[in-house]
Amino acid sequence: MAVVNKAGLLLTLSFCLLLTVSCKRYLPTWDSIDSRPIPDWYDEGKIGIFIHWGVFSVPSFSTEWFWYQWEGRKLQPYIDFMTKNYKPDFTYADFASMFTAEFYDPIQWAQIFKASGAKYIALTTKHHEGFCNWDTKYSFNWNSMDVGPKRDLVGELAGALRLTTDIRFGIYHSLFEWFHPLYLQDASNNYTTQDFVKFKTMPELYELVNKYMPEFIFSDGDWMVDDFYWNATEFIAWLYNDSPVKDTIVVNDRWGQNIRCKHGGVLDCDDRYNPGVLQNRKWENCMTIDRDSWGYRRNAQLDGYITIEEILSTLAETVSCGGNLLINIGPTHDGRILPIFEERLRQMGQWLQVNGEAIYATKPWVYQNDTLTKGVWYTSRNETDTLSVYAIILDWPTGDTLTLGAPVTSLATTVTLLGYPDMFSWEPGSMGGITINIPSIPFNKIPCQWAWVFKFQGLKN
Amino acid sequence: MAVVNKAGLLLTLSFCLLLTVSCKRYLPTWDSIDSRPIPDWYDEGKIGIFIHWGVFSVPSFSTEWFWYQWEGRKLQPYIDFMTKNYKPDFTYADFASMFTAEFYDPIQWAQIFKASGAKYIALTTKHHEGFCNWDTKYSFNWNSMDVGPKRDLVGELAGALRLTTDIRFGIYHSLFEWFHPLYLQDASNNYTTQDFVKFKTMPELYELVNKYMPEFIFSDGDWMVDDFYWNATEFIAWLYNDSPVKDTIVVNDRWGQNIRCKHGGVLDCDDRYNPGVLQNRKWENCMTIDRDSWGYRRNAQLDGYITIEEILSTLAETVSCGGNLLINIGPTHDGRILPIFEERLRQMGQWLQVNGEAIYATKPWVYQNDTLTKGVWYTSRNETDTLSVYAIILDWPTGDTLTLGAPVTSLATTVTLLGYPDMFSWEPGSMGGITINIPSIPFNKIPCQWAWVFKFQGLKN
Amino acid sequence: MAVVNKAGLLLTLSFCLLLTVSCKRYLPTWDSIDSRPIPDWYDEGKIGIFIHWGVFSVPSFSTEWFWYQWEGRKLQPYIDFMTKNYKPDFTYADFASMFTAEFYDPIQWAQIFKASGAKYIALTTKHHEGFCNWDTKYSFNWNSMDVGPKRDLVGELAGALRLTTDIRFGIYHSLFEWFHPLYLQDASNNYTTQDFVKFKTMPELYELVNKYMPEFIFSDGDWMVDDFYWNATEFIAWLYNDSPVKDTIVVNDRWGQNIRCKHGGVLDCDDRYNPGVLQNRKWENCMTIDRDSWGYRRNAQLDGYITIEEILSTLAETVSCGGNLLINIGPTHDGRILPIFEERLRQMGQWLQVNGEAIYATKPWVYQNDTLTKGVWYTSRNETDTLSVYAIILDWPTGDTLTLGAPVTSLATTVTLLGYPDMFSWEPGSMGGITINIPSIPFNKIPCQWAWVFKFQGLKN
Amino acid sequence: MAVVNKAGLLLTLSFCLLLTVSCKRYLPTWDSIDSRPIPDWYDEGKIGIFIHWGVFSVPSFSTEWFWYQWEGRKLQPYIDFMTKNYKPDFTYADFASMFTAEFYDPIQWAQIFKASGAKYIALTTKHHEGFCNWDTKYSFNWNSMDVGPKRDLVGELAGALRLTTDIRFGIYHSLFEWFHPLYLQDASNNYTTQDFVKFKTMPELYELVNKYMPEFIFSDGDWMVDDFYWNATEFIAWLYNDSPVKDTIVVNDRWGQNIRCKHGGVLDCDDRYNPGVLQNRKWENCMTIDRDSWGYRRNAQLDGYITIEEILSTLAETVSCGGNLLINIGPTHDGRILPIFEERLRQMGQWLQVNGEAIYATKPWVYQNDTLTKGVWYTSRNETDTLSVYAIILDWPTGDTLTLGAPVTSLATTVTLLGYPDMFSWEPGSMGGITINIPSIPFNKIPCQWAWVFKFQGLKN
Repeated sequence: MAVVNKAGLLLTLSFCLLLTVSCKRYLPTWDSIDSRPIPDWYDEGKIGIFIHWGVFSVPSFSTEWFWYQWEGRKLQPYIDFMTKNYKPDFTYADFASMFTAEFYDPIQWAQIFKASGAKYIALTTKHHEGFCNWDTKYSFNWNSMDVGPKRDLVGELAGALRLTTDIRFGIYHSLFEWFHPLYLQDASNNYTTQDFVKFKTMPELYELVNKYMPEFIFSDGDWMVDDFYWNATEFIAWLYNDSPVKDTIVVNDRWGQNIRCKHGGVLDCDDRYNPGVLQNRKWENCMTIDRDSWGYRRNAQLDGYITIEEILSTLAETVSCGGNLLINIGPTHDGRILPIFEERLRQMGQWLQVNGEAIYATKPWVYQNDTLTKGVWYTSRNETDTLSVYAIILDWPTGDTLTLGAPVTSLATTVTLLGYPDMFSWEPGSMGGITINIPSIPFNKIPCQWAWVFKFQGLKN
Repeated sequence: MAVVNKAGLLLTLSFCLLLTVSCKRYLPTWDSIDSRPIPDWYDEGKIGIFIHWGVFSVPSFSTEWFWYQWEGRKLQPYIDFMTKNYKPDFTYADFASMFTAEFYDPIQWAQIFKASGAKYIALTTKHHEGFCNWDTKYSFNWNSMDVGPKRDLVGELAGALRLTTDIRFGIYHSLFEWFHPLYLQDASNNYTTQDFVKFKTMPELYELVNKYMPEFIFSDGDWMVDDFYWNATEFIAWLYNDSPVKDTIVVNDRWGQNIRCKHGGVLDCDDRYNPGVLQNRKWENCMTIDRDSWGYRRNAQLDGYITIEEILSTLAETVSCGGNLLINIGPTHDGRILPIFEERLRQMGQWLQVNGEAIYATKPWVYQNDTLTKGVWYTSRNETDTLSVYAIILDWPTGDTLTLGAPVTSLATTVTLLGYPDMFSWEPGSMGGITINIPSIPFNKIPCQWAWVFKFQGLKN
Repeated sequence: MAVVNKAGLLLTLSFCLLLTVSCKRYLPTWDSIDSRPIPDWYDEGKIGIFIHWGVFSVPSFSTEWFWYQWEGRKLQPYIDFMTKNYKPDFTYADFASMFTAEFYDPIQWAQIFKASGAKYIALTTKHHEGFCNWDTKYSFNWNSMDVGPKRDLVGELAGALRLTTDIRFGIYHSLFEWFHPLYLQDASNNYTTQDFVKFKTMPELYELVNKYMPEFIFSDGDWMVDDFYWNATEFIAWLYNDSPVKDTIVVNDRWGQNIRCKHGGVLDCDDRYNPGVLQNRKWENCMTIDRDSWGYRRNAQLDGYITIEEILSTLAETVSCGGNLLINIGPTHDGRILPIFEERLRQMGQWLQVNGEAIYATKPWVYQNDTLTKGVWYTSRNETDTLSVYAIILDWPTGDTLTLGAPVTSLATTVTLLGYPDMFSWEPGSMGGITINIPSIPFNKIPCQWAWVFKFQGLKN
Repeated sequence: MAVVNKAGLLLTLSFCLLLTVSCKRYLPTWDSIDSRPIPDWYDEGKIGIFIHWGVFSVPSFSTEWFWYQWEGRKLQPYIDFMTKNYKPDFTYADFASMFTAEFYDPIQWAQIFKASGAKYIALTTKHHEGFCNWDTKYSFNWNSMDVGPKRDLVGELAGALRLTTDIRFGIYHSLFEWFHPLYLQDASNNYTTQDFVKFKTMPELYELVNKYMPEFIFSDGDWMVDDFYWNATEFIAWLYNDSPVKDTIVVNDRWGQNIRCKHGGVLDCDDRYNPGVLQNRKWENCMTIDRDSWGYRRNAQLDGYITIEEILSTLAETVSCGGNLLINIGPTHDGRILPIFEERLRQMGQWLQVNGEAIYATKPWVYQNDTLTKGVWYTSRNETDTLSVYAIILDWPTGDTLTLGAPVTSLATTVTLLGYPDMFSWEPGSMGGITINIPSIPFNKIPCQWAWVFKFQGLKN
């Protein structure tokens, strides 16, 4: 779908010339880049799956920052883990040959992602460790073709998604690397040299885009230095003007310590960014099912994983405030998505089967959360004749009525519960708002078990 | 708790002499062995955790019968798995050094078992592969002290359970071994020789009992030959008469192909034995959360694990018919109980927090399942003045009444739902039985989500 | 050659009955066993190759006693080696899977042994570590078929020798094992129990003999306890009376701490036993090319290997005093005889090509070493009409004569140098003995470079 | 010794300015480079040790070209070796973590090299596989600090040599790499791009020189393309003009397919280059003790190693014709020089102890080999008053005279045998030349066993 052949490009150009429409070219400046609208598919999709997979999945202990905690910060628990379980002088690079991926079945992964209701994914192509999960020219013998899996992990997943789903393929890519000697050299030169960017970061990004045509790029590893070093505007301008994915590509904002949360595409700001109030730019809440790690960690017990209730609460809050949810899982070194992750994703998918109408392609409403009742988040859908407002309630009403402060009603307003056949009777609130009568619904008629959506539909004036 | 000191033994003996009560000694005959009552703790406990852990947890592929399927039956999927992932001439014994158990935390395991509501466990001390999970004299360099974990897996779990819980420690032990040359020799001699039994099976069992004082022994691997070969009656007689656990030990029935389901202690009969009707001897339903394997297998996705609904259904059916449930999990080669297993166990424990009254120390009722409504299983509790009958309903009533055919009522009968504060009104059924009025219970007042227990309490005549 | 078919046995028996000759049966007493003559092949062969190969060849550090030095005696260098190079909790048994033997080519070994001039070999079938290099019933998963090589190392070498050489196949076998729990149990019982002997040592020995028909058994590991424990007389009596190798088998003397150097077959006494004077029983000097180890050790530099001069000196001294030389090499974990070993063996073979006449099938002479000149050792050959005396001189004469004190001459005595065409002129010594005139022999006419043999031949009176 | 401090440089420059002598600066042209004299130490030293060590030392099968033969040429024996001994999808890079070097003791190596009589060494810093044996900025995670040894193999040997010997430290470095993607890209661009040279080859060479100050660089891997691609003249000009080793550095000639055997420093031409006739430029014969491999290969038996006779023959021929001998050994993956290599090196050293006068600091004579007698090679030493000519004879004279055609004699000529005290009588040959009378030298007076040197000394006219 993202393949643009040359004929297509010519057609597009001709089309522009003929119509003198906005076949705008972007300049390598943040102003120009910021002026590009984010393609609709992204805002409409709302939910992405984030996948952290790399050599860190081999020790799979505590965090994907394992290498840095161990040899950078020299934290005791990591030193102890290595001392206890590996021979002395075992290096991080030695782990790579144990990154086997023998159970990696990208078609199976794609099916799980599809069942989750997500509309895009972002796979780590390279994390701060520098290991490349694809067939690259720029990381000899430190990539998944040369050592370990002997497979193009990135290419296989892109292919499987495109073959079997409508999910858009996206990538995570770290600009910097903790221990790359060229990066360290640039850093010790106070970033007056750019060898690492010239010979590593940028070639990689171009290679990734040209080879795999991702429609989403989650850039990361930007925070050590301002954007002058990374010189990313040129890359993004190319992406927007001339890359094979120029019409659909979405990038984020992590392109320099002075850029993030300010410029670029979607604002990811910090990890688990969830402002709780409406934002005037499109943003994304990247968070993870494992409470403490993005990469798989073996030392997580059940309570280390968030519950489906927590996921839905975060989803409601995020979408209400204009964000997308990028929800993360960590596959194992041998290529599996463990059942606990699969369960959470499928639970979310079940919920979306019933309540997806309140999520996909919605827009924030004038209110984000209710003024009277806690735990109620709003979304809306503005159609030709009607306006629908969705109240996602995280807790079932404790009494036989539910009073909300935000909704504005008219006589024509109908109140329904998504997944439930009957309409609900209601009365206008005394101070505005609405009081909905909650009837007795037998346990087996309740449309879902973890969060519920009331829909208020009215004709537009 | 299982430690019997010498003074205690003397006291017991004196007690017998003084009271001339049943300080009966058992003979090594099935008649005599069958005559021993099963200690009460077992029937009252109802639920045990079965744990399959061994060298098979290293390949952790498809089943704990991996070795046999691969090299005994030479099944293609196993041959392919080995060919694809290991070097030629890799042997099953080579796996042992990868059985690392570095995350094995028996205290943590004990806490999970406790939270599950189980009252005993059975850990594989040795499966058919012959690898001994304890510090043994009879399996040189094929045990967990000499190769792999370098730990006494059995002893550590026994200690942790006794230190931190009231759960009774039990063991699984396989009489036979697929590939032990002495066994194979006895077999090829048509079992006219007993070298394997004399030098391996029996010494192991005595060692296990004397060293770890289990209160439950799940014997297995008996089906190739009649009991004359295993000569187990002598061992069981010793267990009942003179072992350090003689007062509390419970054994099962797998002591020969002609014995199982007929003699011994608790009848395990076949795996997943669940007759669905009341049995006149105590029996046990050993089953596993992974639908297809007892040992951990990496190639199981979420739908390979049974749901909590299925577990509770099986529990209800089993206890109703007089059985115990021995529910199995498979830890990983590095010593972890994966979150999906932990979740199922904790879900069961949550349910038992509310509904344990209908399970622990109950007796089968005159009816096991209801005559009118499917999916309803009965248990009962006969106390001095009152008889309580528990109807475990697997599906919530679809209408506003629930009609049951089995209960016998009087005016004094009270009907309650475990975990719910109010009594339920009811009417006697027209043909006997009862019709319970199901009121509107708000979603958040329902005491649990997967199976519910109505309690009928009446005075005894 | 060692295969005795049934017809052969019958013939032998008939032959005995007919001739009423010495088809003597031996009793399981040392007197009886000692009375059996050692088969001629052994004394005539003079030189054997000893081969130490086992799991110790994997660490191949310092000595084949690695396991004991490390975990038995806990010597610091061994602890350090393990700490530095292996992960904690690495066990000795974990080494077994690295015993790969991928370069093991028994035909190639056989060719090297043949080129060395040796007439028999002794391969470690099982050293004190207990690892069995053959397909055994008595060491489940601690043998070369079940773990590591996945090959019958013993059987393959026996076959290759028989197929391609006339070298006799022999075995080394350790009665005891450092860490076998049954042995340790017997030991802690002060050897009042014999479980280890019954279920391990003896079954192994019978299995080895029946399966591989060795003609030489180098027993070892006897020194902890008297022979009453090992009960070896029964085994030896069976060997001599009824085994498939009863006519040709040679055993040694290490069958109990009170037996060695006193009873049995050939006296091995201690390692490197080399009394320097004539013995009245057949004995053997087992020694090793690596000065400090029998198993291969990686930490040996060139000066850790004895020179060909030292080998020939030892050979001369040993044979002169009535012994056989059993010269040891240590193959690598991957099955190779390193070039330095091969070189020593081939150098010995080259020397024997020239001087073998002074070694093979010789008898000690009345003098063993010369009374006047150091470094001269005698052997002799008594033929129908002539007596030949061989003087092996380790250093070339420094002057133009060589004076020896021992030889008795007549006018008919001829003096030659083996490998040199011309006779030497000589004169009787003034006090007996002989003075040989050493002519100028050009460098390229000297028959060998490291030891030379003068032959004195005379008619017998 | 190679350390040049800044003060030194200033002094040198001042010295040049004051004396207006040849403090010549070289241009990056072959003409200019060729004009630089080769520092004397090199010609005087005559013998270097070549050391091939790298990841290829792990499989150590057949050749250091293992990777290329296996995955480049896909030769069957290599495919078979991998198929038989490794799991499928095992990559060459996976070998790196097994490059352990735990026995690597550079002081011990230095002692062996010293004993060999060599005056310089060349260690592979990087072979065609690209693995860097030093702490480099240009080969992240494919170098000996990041994976495998976790040691700076180059730096440690440089240090040990300088600390404990007078041997000059030199390096081998491959310009190209079989499989580096940047190289392959340049190649597929027909070498119109130079990314690989800019970002890999040249940075490496500068780093090596600045860090380790080698006095000898054996460049290799030049043959695929002309020198325009490698652009080495700039590097060599820097080496000669400004590098820390500008006064003593010696390079070879492998800097492009059109350069080798024509330009640069010492001519290495092909491997085992040994023209047999006098050359007018300084050249080097790099050859290896293992007949068929430069890296260690496990599948070499004794006859795969050349004999000391062959080494001395090659040395004599090489030095006679104006060359240096660079004799190669291959250490093991665990850092050892096997005894067979050590033996050859020490044998050469023993011979040089006696005969070094005929080798070190000699010049070719007017004749290289004798005109009458085969196997006689000449060297000479021209001192103030005397001229000495050395005839190295590879075979001991078969008769009592040795007739040589080349020597020119006068009455004052003395003839001696190096290592032997007495002078030899001689007569002028009838047709020129000389006939030396070979007296009877007892075996133990012969100064060496493998090649002998007659010295002809005469006053100069």
